[in-house]
Amino acid sequence: MEGTMMGFIAPVFGLGAKGNSVAGTGKRGGFGLSVNMTVAANTSSVASESEKEEWASLNAMYSLTSEQKYKAMTLPAAENPFSAKYIAFNESDTSEYSLDKVVYRAKNGGLLDVQHDMDALAQHSPAEWKELFDRRSGRTVWPFGSGVWSKKEWVLPGIPNEDVVSMFEGNSNLFWADRFGKEIGMTDLWVKQCGNSHTGSFKDLGMTVLVSQVNHIIKKQGGIEAVGCASTGDTSAALAAYCAAAGIPSIVFLPADKISLAQLVQPIANGSIVVSLDTDFDGCMKLIQEVVEEYPIYLANSMNSLRLEGQKTVSIEIAQQFDWEVPDWIVVPGGNLGNVYAFYKGFKMMKDLGLTTRMPRLVVAQAHNANPLYTAYKNGWDFQPMVAERTLASAIQIGDPVSVHRAIRALKACNGVVGEATEEELMDVGARADRTGMFNCPHTGVALAVLEKLRNDGTIGANDRTVVVSTAHGLKFTDSKIAYHERKLHQAKGNYANNVIRIPAQSDRVIDELRKRVEL
Amino acid sequence: MEGTMMGFIAPVFGLGAKGNSVAGTGKRGGFGLSVNMTVAANTSSVASESEKEEWASLNAMYSLTSEQKYKAMTLPAAENPFSAKYIAFNESDTSEYSLDKVVYRAKNGGLLDVQHDMDALAQHSPAEWKELFDRRSGRTVWPFGSGVWSKKEWVLPGIPNEDVVSMFEGNSNLFWADRFGKEIGMTDLWVKQCGNSHTGSFKDLGMTVLVSQVNHIIKKQGGIEAVGCASTGDTSAALAAYCAAAGIPSIVFLPADKISLAQLVQPIANGSIVVSLDTDFDGCMKLIQEVVEEYPIYLANSMNSLRLEGQKTVSIEIAQQFDWEVPDWIVVPGGNLGNVYAFYKGFKMMKDLGLTTRMPRLVVAQAHNANPLYTAYKNGWDFQPMVAERTLASAIQIGDPVSVHRAIRALKACNGVVGEATEEELMDVGARADRTGMFNCPHTGVALAVLEKLRNDGTIGANDRTVVVSTAHGLKFTDSKIAYHERKLHQAKGNYANNVIRIPAQSDRVIDELRKRVEL
Repeated sequence: MEGTMMGFIAPVFGLGAKGNSVAGTGKRGGFGLSVNMTVAANTSSVASESEKEEWASLNAMYSLTSEQKYKAMTLPAAENPFSAKYIAFNESDTSEYSLDKVVYRAKNGGLLDVQHDMDALAQHSPAEWKELFDRRSGRTVWPFGSGVWSKKEWVLPGIPNEDVVSMFEGNSNLFWADRFGKEIGMTDLWVKQCGNSHTGSFKDLGMTVLVSQVNHIIKKQGGIEAVGCASTGDTSAALAAYCAAAGIPSIVFLPADKISLAQLVQPIANGSIVVSLDTDFDGCMKLIQEVVEEYPIYLANSMNSLRLEGQKTVSIEIAQQFDWEVPDWIVVPGGNLGNVYAFYKGFKMMKDLGLTTRMPRLVVAQAHNANPLYTAYKNGWDFQPMVAERTLASAIQIGDPVSVHRAIRALKACNGVVGEATEEELMDVGARADRTGMFNCPHTGVALAVLEKLRNDGTIGANDRTVVVSTAHGLKFTDSKIAYHERKLHQAKGNYANNVIRIPAQSDRVIDELRKRVEL
Repeated sequence: MEGTMMGFIAPVFGLGAKGNSVAGTGKRGGFGLSVNMTVAANTSSVASESEKEEWASLNAMYSLTSEQKYKAMTLPAAENPFSAKYIAFNESDTSEYSLDKVVYRAKNGGLLDVQHDMDALAQHSPAEWKELFDRRSGRTVWPFGSGVWSKKEWVLPGIPNEDVVSMFEGNSNLFWADRFGKEIGMTDLWVKQCGNSHTGSFKDLGMTVLVSQVNHIIKKQGGIEAVGCASTGDTSAALAAYCAAAGIPSIVFLPADKISLAQLVQPIANGSIVVSLDTDFDGCMKLIQEVVEEYPIYLANSMNSLRLEGQKTVSIEIAQQFDWEVPDWIVVPGGNLGNVYAFYKGFKMMKDLGLTTRMPRLVVAQAHNANPLYTAYKNGWDFQPMVAERTLASAIQIGDPVSVHRAIRALKACNGVVGEATEEELMDVGARADRTGMFNCPHTGVALAVLEKLRNDGTIGANDRTVVVSTAHGLKFTDSKIAYHERKLHQAKGNYANNVIRIPAQSDRVIDELRKRVEL
């Protein structure tokens, strides 16, 4: 194959061509892999005249003018029959609100859901939508380059482009976990690196939608002076960054003496108004809810259904990265459980509009110390809130998840599974996977540990195409990683800790040590 | 404009159309902005039949088959006349080596440079290259989706696609620093977020090239058993991650007791062989150089010219994000000074091949505590190494930069400038910029501080299009950010520190405090 690199035809995925001799030779990864077709590797180093002509003619097909390219990314003006509105998640509640209204709950107090006019979306063919999303993503026409806003009509169809607050979120790497997959007996394992983003977590995907809609409401009708939340983690970081970019004040409430500045460095740096209160977390939540009822502060908490519209685009992006093939399994860590419902919505919408032909099976991975959904799953979906114990996967340390019924609906609809992982399991598997090139946060560790169990018990097959959703960058969780490798965690012995080799500065001693580990 | 979002024509950049009423209304950012054309905002909400027809015909032009799309991303086999080789950086040295040879220095001991066959590259028109790069970036044909490998023929033309080790690096956000720009009197300021990447720094861009080439040599001829470096920072993190993904052992040498595990958590986690030696940093460097001379370990230090080929693609990506317009200024923090030469190479190559028509002016920003290039710049380019003092911008704390002559050549050729920033300046400006949505590392702070000085003294004009290169994610440098906001840094008072407001959990007290900061 050497010397023929330009003619090398990329390994083939998508249409089940894996395992042939071509696929076996190539290292893949990145934003997907290859196109949906089977072509033999070109072993000739000489292109024929006809090949050259074909290339020239293809090249010509791409040679649209700037104006044509621009126009091809925006539907014509009257092509916007698209709309979305709030409805109640509970179907017996007939609530219905404009997205421009500041409202957090349905009439009966239940959750809201964003509903799109599917008939309007169905006026475009599946092929048209795929083409439109493909040609927008990563490009320079505002705001369509973003992984979220390239799907704008499916997310927030009613917002003017100039009101969007975007930091080019999405389009994250779909890491081909070739080496780790082999370790656990899998041939087709991928990790979606959602934490590789502006604030380092998947929360950016939802927050760009929430802050954009707030920005739109402010411009259109006013009545919002700030956005507030009571989170101390990734949510407040994303909220603070997007609000800072938009010039909208953000407010974070937190319990005094329970949170270190390190946990808050992002909202602090992004200029949030950080209010530390002599109460616990529930007290903060109660107080912010009181305040937003009386004052023009928009509440950005986890019940907010706008955020799910952004998170939903992860599903669409995954399908896109597999050239519109749906994987067999999606494994996602679950705490408040909005994400699994969002992913379900994304896959469902693609299927309903004909872009794909099936649903993946969704797996929610919970920490054993905060496993109310796992317990419900084992008990015929009879959900009981619990008091979560401490877990290193701190973002999913939740005993009474806001979106539990959203999650149950999603899991029931796609024959989903729930698994759990102990502290030691999540840290060990995270460390093992790190050695194959990842840098996992503890939540991704939970997902990887559950994946391995489901592989071991045969639920997930050796050749099932499986995507693990990594929800945050490991750089946000270096403390527990350091403690693990120092074997100072009380939750995990550090079975896969990497030891620093301490020796005198003598080349023979160095070589002796290296020879124990590599062939020299 | 409301209700016409689908017909809204994105604000116009690129061709100097900024400042018109359309441009004034839109918030932009992301992977660039808009296309190079001037179109009035479409205020009609009704598309004419002709608009619809045009859209349908454009849509049809994009409707290539998967096979056609795939082929359009790879040049025909015989279209690979491209080649590159090592030559000596010093033109009086006639050294010339194959890139498949393990070699670090020219015959006379000087630096190497990668030289491309420009005549071969010139066989394709500028328009063809632009089109090819555009249609590859972010797409699913391996390895072209990567920001680096979408420019493969310009980077490592000789490597088979299947030998590439890529984690979808590049394609990072070009953040429109609208709010911060206004603060310092600039209308067209952008920050290239190179730290938004797999390991959190721009080093990924070079390391994908180095590790790919090592992987290629191993597969082709063997003779390399591991890759080693003596870095304790971003370089070792990137080396460890790419080697881990490829399954190649990596080795990191470091001085005992001088480095904390926190600084090493990435190589530790990624399974590097970490050797701690009872010597100083220079001792580590000396020892690794001894070892690689005798044993089959590839040296990944900062003199390596392969890495610059990857870093060079930042220039190409910036131009691409501005629809192939070259900015007026590029401001980059400088320590070992490879980056500024790499950026120069990228811009020069585009100009030489006709993709662009001019060079930007490059600015190197140094910390005052490690400013040998600044001193040289002030003294007619008479360079003297110095002993660098401690700076919070630790990655550029270098008194005797490996690539100083590369940098001087680049700066002379493009009428470049060198500036410096004190510790307080770099922390203060970083904090101010964070409040507008960024999350800057101290090195980016150095660049922003120098930018502000050059704006204030009139060197950089109010409307000059300027790109600041952010070299690492702020999440890698939270310690100094926390200390700044706690006002515990001895280097900086914390003039822009954000205070946590500590009050009792009473809504009236809360509202009193909020009212001091927002209109309620």
